[in-house]
Amino acid sequence: MSRSERVDADSAADAVAAFAGGEPVLIHDAADREGETDIVYPAGSVTPAAVARLRNDAGGLVCVALSDSVAAALELPFMQEVLDHPTAAAHDLAYDERSSFSLTVNHRDTFTGITDEDRSLTIRELAGLAADPDADVFAASFRSPGHVHLLRAAPELLADREGHTELGIALAAAADQPPAVVVCEMLDGETGGALSPADARAYAAEHGFPYVEGRSLVDALP
Amino acid sequence: MSRSERVDADSAADAVAAFAGGEPVLIHDAADREGETDIVYPAGSVTPAAVARLRNDAGGLVCVALSDSVAAALELPFMQEVLDHPTAAAHDLAYDERSSFSLTVNHRDTFTGITDEDRSLTIRELAGLAADPDADVFAASFRSPGHVHLLRAAPELLADREGHTELGIALAAAADQPPAVVVCEMLDGETGGALSPADARAYAAEHGFPYVEGRSLVDALP
Repeated sequence: MSRSERVDADSAADAVAAFAGGEPVLIHDAADREGETDIVYPAGSVTPAAVARLRNDAGGLVCVALSDSVAAALELPFMQEVLDHPTAAAHDLAYDERSSFSLTVNHRDTFTGITDEDRSLTIRELAGLAADPDADVFAASFRSPGHVHLLRAAPELLADREGHTELGIALAAAADQPPAVVVCEMLDGETGGALSPADARAYAAEHGFPYVEGRSLVDALP
Repeated sequence: MSRSERVDADSAADAVAAFAGGEPVLIHDAADREGETDIVYPAGSVTPAAVARLRNDAGGLVCVALSDSVAAALELPFMQEVLDHPTAAAHDLAYDERSSFSLTVNHRDTFTGITDEDRSLTIRELAGLAADPDADVFAASFRSPGHVHLLRAAPELLADREGHTELGIALAAAADQPPAVVVCEMLDGETGGALSPADARAYAAEHGFPYVEGRSLVDALP
């Protein structure tokens, strides 16, 4: 094993261990894809303080990725496929064949849905549902549209697509967490563009979170 | 005119003047409604730095409200009405009859859609379209789903509904701006709840932006 392979294997193992303990992980997809680092949490560990971290330190959309089987059980479509609108007709993403967006939701016990308390409630309840998916409970407990974006992972996960959605769900499986993970893009505080891998690594080191390349997860995870 | 009526009329006039000059305004809807203050911009004035302000100083969803007539011309539905999903069936919002959410979109010239540059491009192009709405241009220029939420205002504006969506569009009309405005909820940096009116007023004063109560706009605008 070369030195770089060993580093990659170590970082993937660190990511699995952190995730198993309910800690966040930073995942950079790939320089030739979105080129983005997301903060990724097991959904069940998302407290109001975690939502504040996503708002303040990441800055992207707060999304919950669900596995294909959970999404199927909850009858969650890809938004692009159910929208009967001309803007949804042409598929021309530069970085992948399709976006993972499904519905947006709020838990029905939220008020506006946007506060840290409200979004963390929505997210943690989604984790509970992912552990035991039931379409009736979903309809009774959540409303759509809402303030948390759902993402639907590709059926064959990393064999189909290597986006943050699939990387996060594969990490959850390896860490024995329910297949519901929060992903949020890290933006650069100064330029407003994607945070550079070097700056994302520095943030990870400062906070004691693992930083891992998508490629390392693809190689290490089953 | 009582002193409080005079203050209200002044703050509404200040809001119209600021908006006419492309400056943002802080609007608090009402204590007995969402109880939220939004930062509101004419969409055509939203630079990347303005998106950064919304991320860093507001913290809610970055949304573009469009007038009912523009939304009709662009064939934009209320999301709740087109989603064939049980979570969209029961209408039980605590603060109003219905949410204003329509589609989410990105301009097709964006890459991921989430950077400050990308979101500001999407938002400014929506302002151009609102000034001269054309469904073909919309379909050719934007894709859905995306990273900017569209909101559709009620047909009779403030006579129908007194949400930030309608308040913002009414303000745009009074300020002779196209009927496309960005709204983003202000959250409290410490509690993560809605920013209090006192703290929102202090932020407005610090930055030289008008702060106005929804009630004052309802009373002052045609």
